[in-house]
Amino acid sequence: MKYTFETEVRGYELDSYGHLNNAIYINYTEQARWEILKNAGLLESFLSNNLLLVVIETNIRYIRELKLFDNVKVETQISFDAPYLIFQHNILNSTANVKAAKAEVKTLLIDRERVPQDIPEKLLAII
Amino acid sequence: MKYTFETEVRGYELDSYGHLNNAIYINYTEQARWEILKNAGLLESFLSNNLLLVVIETNIRYIRELKLFDNVKVETQISFDAPYLIFQHNILNSTANVKAAKAEVKTLLIDRERVPQDIPEKLLAII
Amino acid sequence: MKYTFETEVRGYELDSYGHLNNAIYINYTEQARWEILKNAGLLESFLSNNLLLVVIETNIRYIRELKLFDNVKVETQISFDAPYLIFQHNILNSTANVKAAKAEVKTLLIDRERVPQDIPEKLLAII
Amino acid sequence: MKYTFETEVRGYELDSYGHLNNAIYINYTEQARWEILKNAGLLESFLSNNLLLVVIETNIRYIRELKLFDNVKVETQISFDAPYLIFQHNILNSTANVKAAKAEVKTLLIDRERVPQDIPEKLLAII
Repeated sequence: MKYTFETEVRGYELDSYGHLNNAIYINYTEQARWEILKNAGLLESFLSNNLLLVVIETNIRYIRELKLFDNVKVETQISFDAPYLIFQHNILNSTANVKAAKAEVKTLLIDRERVPQDIPEKLLAII
Repeated sequence: MKYTFETEVRGYELDSYGHLNNAIYINYTEQARWEILKNAGLLESFLSNNLLLVVIETNIRYIRELKLFDNVKVETQISFDAPYLIFQHNILNSTANVKAAKAEVKTLLIDRERVPQDIPEKLLAII
Repeated sequence: MKYTFETEVRGYELDSYGHLNNAIYINYTEQARWEILKNAGLLESFLSNNLLLVVIETNIRYIRELKLFDNVKVETQISFDAPYLIFQHNILNSTANVKAAKAEVKTLLIDRERVPQDIPEKLLAII
Repeated sequence: MKYTFETEVRGYELDSYGHLNNAIYINYTEQARWEILKNAGLLESFLSNNLLLVVIETNIRYIRELKLFDNVKVETQISFDAPYLIFQHNILNSTANVKAAKAEVKTLLIDRERVPQDIPEKLLAII
């Protein structure tokens, strides 16, 4: 399944060149993952059990710059490569209809003591 | 007239207490002003003439915390107290239906050489 | 007593005009307060007791812009106006030797249940 | 040659788990590169000629979390793989004396019209 997070580039997210700052793309992918957890009904249980989907590795290719008020879609697909959950994020500029970036984010579910946890059924079910 | 900017609190905007960081409220009010400029059709001319609505003073009262996925409305009213444009921003938590913050932001229109400029008619027209 | 937090304006803190973004000044004052808590030996007890110095109101006047690699000093004085702790922050551009901004931040010490707490002696002692 | 940028984890850089947010590591590596450009005496000419070292790809591995007031060193080595400048950043927690992250950042020097430019001698000289 594919999940979509939509936003619009904001004035305070621009760098001194008038482009979206590189780190904000990373923020967008993070928010895409928060929304997926929320939609899977996992937010409460993660928070109350101190579970954290920790990022192990991010590989992002920047393809085209994003500018003020560009409409952005982050389309995400998830795969499970035990014990890792892998998120493939396509960041699209839907104003210009071009791909802006592409990120692969490798995550691991851990608790407060950093002990890896099994991925809940609810999350595996939506992959 | 009243202008509304809407957003939702994102995971990466939270502080270590799980609340929206104080500085992000300021970001939200900035984006509300960018949208007003855009809607007034002033974005292009401001950028091409290097005009900048510079903030002289911000007074913000934090009333209630905002949390992950709270829906936020920033309602803005503008007044002109020559040479200043004053923005009154009400930041509402529309999920909990309470006021989250209230900010008054005093701005001045300047060019690259920091010379104050007249407020364009298009902007005065929407006050 | 006066407390000083020093930093240098970073490339990723600039806005599209090449100036330090308005919200980052607020971040700098927040960090000045974290350092004061740390120097007063209060960080551990605040964290373990879930105590939070919550900001009730910020009033900031922006006097001069800050640019890439400008050296910044945030000089802070604290006063106690029960039940509030008031922080007066002067933000100085020590590269250009001018005042860049001036902020007054009104805070209240609360616990997780938002119950106001007495200001610890260690903190009153350094005012 | 190896270049070092030092900082300390700030309160407003923490996420809701009390760890340094993933995107801030990216900010730190960006600032390391700004400092390298400055030290090579290239900042002025880059700004006046609208030259931009644009990031094409970032690969970052997160090894250990960083916490409030941890001392951080970003050690950077540069290589030239025409037409790309490649930055290898090691992010060290010098408080705990462990490696916190490791990033490879591939950049390209372009002008405002996005035309790739030759890497200046001054920059090649410091590799």
